[in-house]
Amino acid sequence: MRLRNVPHAQKTLDAHEHIVVKDPKGQKGNWASLFDNDNPIHLEIGMGKGQFVVGMAKLHPEINFVGIERYESVLVRALERLLEEEELTNVRLLKVDATHLEEYFAPGEISQLYLNFSDPWPKARHAKRRLTSQQFLDRYKKILPVDAEIWFKSDNRHLFEWSLLEMNAYGMEFQEVCLNLHQDEFEGNVRTEYEENWSAKGYPIFRIVVTYPQ
Amino acid sequence: MRLRNVPHAQKTLDAHEHIVVKDPKGQKGNWASLFDNDNPIHLEIGMGKGQFVVGMAKLHPEINFVGIERYESVLVRALERLLEEEELTNVRLLKVDATHLEEYFAPGEISQLYLNFSDPWPKARHAKRRLTSQQFLDRYKKILPVDAEIWFKSDNRHLFEWSLLEMNAYGMEFQEVCLNLHQDEFEGNVRTEYEENWSAKGYPIFRIVVTYPQ
Repeated sequence: MRLRNVPHAQKTLDAHEHIVVKDPKGQKGNWASLFDNDNPIHLEIGMGKGQFVVGMAKLHPEINFVGIERYESVLVRALERLLEEEELTNVRLLKVDATHLEEYFAPGEISQLYLNFSDPWPKARHAKRRLTSQQFLDRYKKILPVDAEIWFKSDNRHLFEWSLLEMNAYGMEFQEVCLNLHQDEFEGNVRTEYEENWSAKGYPIFRIVVTYPQ
Repeated sequence: MRLRNVPHAQKTLDAHEHIVVKDPKGQKGNWASLFDNDNPIHLEIGMGKGQFVVGMAKLHPEINFVGIERYESVLVRALERLLEEEELTNVRLLKVDATHLEEYFAPGEISQLYLNFSDPWPKARHAKRRLTSQQFLDRYKKILPVDAEIWFKSDNRHLFEWSLLEMNAYGMEFQEVCLNLHQDEFEGNVRTEYEENWSAKGYPIFRIVVTYPQ
């Protein structure tokens, strides 16, 4: 998700260093002390405007959340949303790319991973950029414990179909699959704005939860 | 699929022994000579009224097809459909249950398997009866070569979701997945009557092709 240039985005981000972590590489292995507790840390990759990560953080004060987003103009929207929630101390945001997660997180430092409405990269030659590719599954593995769950939801049928093939080929163990999430919604599903809009048009939302091969 | 009692069903079946094989156990290892050629043999389990197997047989004269169905009243419908196609010599029908396939077919004697709109058996305690259960995957393995494909399509979302989990847990390799077959229909998809009706109502048809772990 790219947004038009947001004036003063960088300035706003700079003014909130307690939320938008400035030196992510310096935090590797240090996230528990940054959150000042030993709660599990969940990571959302490509959080967009932050509706999911903020919603989850409100629902789960016993969990710490990190949201990453590589576009400054988008990240600032998530920050603004978060600033509306004064009490929320269990969220940090990072302006980084997902390619080198092991530079920011130690092995096992992240307990659970969320991928929501990820960019489908529809061209075949861009398949490796899809966040559910085997290349990315390899990367996530470096920062997750062996039993970690990855939660993926998408409105994009072709991306989801491809992800089923890719995850199966990698040997991922399917824990849950839902091919129409809003018809069978579980308690605690945090909907994003995008998800609401898409679903309102009558299109299904697809969801899968996977773990690594044991 | 059960139909109301069809009068004289048994009589009709008996009158067409060249199509409705009377002694399936006696044919084990003998199917090539029964078809009088060495063409590959494909099997549909639970063929219902036979629209798929007859449609496939017309499209693929280079393949032999066996359709099995355990209800006589349904099988006779498939036979009647087949009798309308005088030229079709590449189809045989069996009134048997799918539980003991290895009694009718030798290892590797069937090249490909089709499951279309199988009974969802919605109660959890009946899960083993679903034709995509690990128990049935074990049974199919006994009559298929190692690289055989199983084609499964269904309109039943819960059955399909469960089948994805079950096949993945068994270690099946996903070759193709389509979550809206009629939006992305491939050339040569033979639609059943049931499939047409369901799709006309705007519901998606789900499809997967899997192979056994190598």
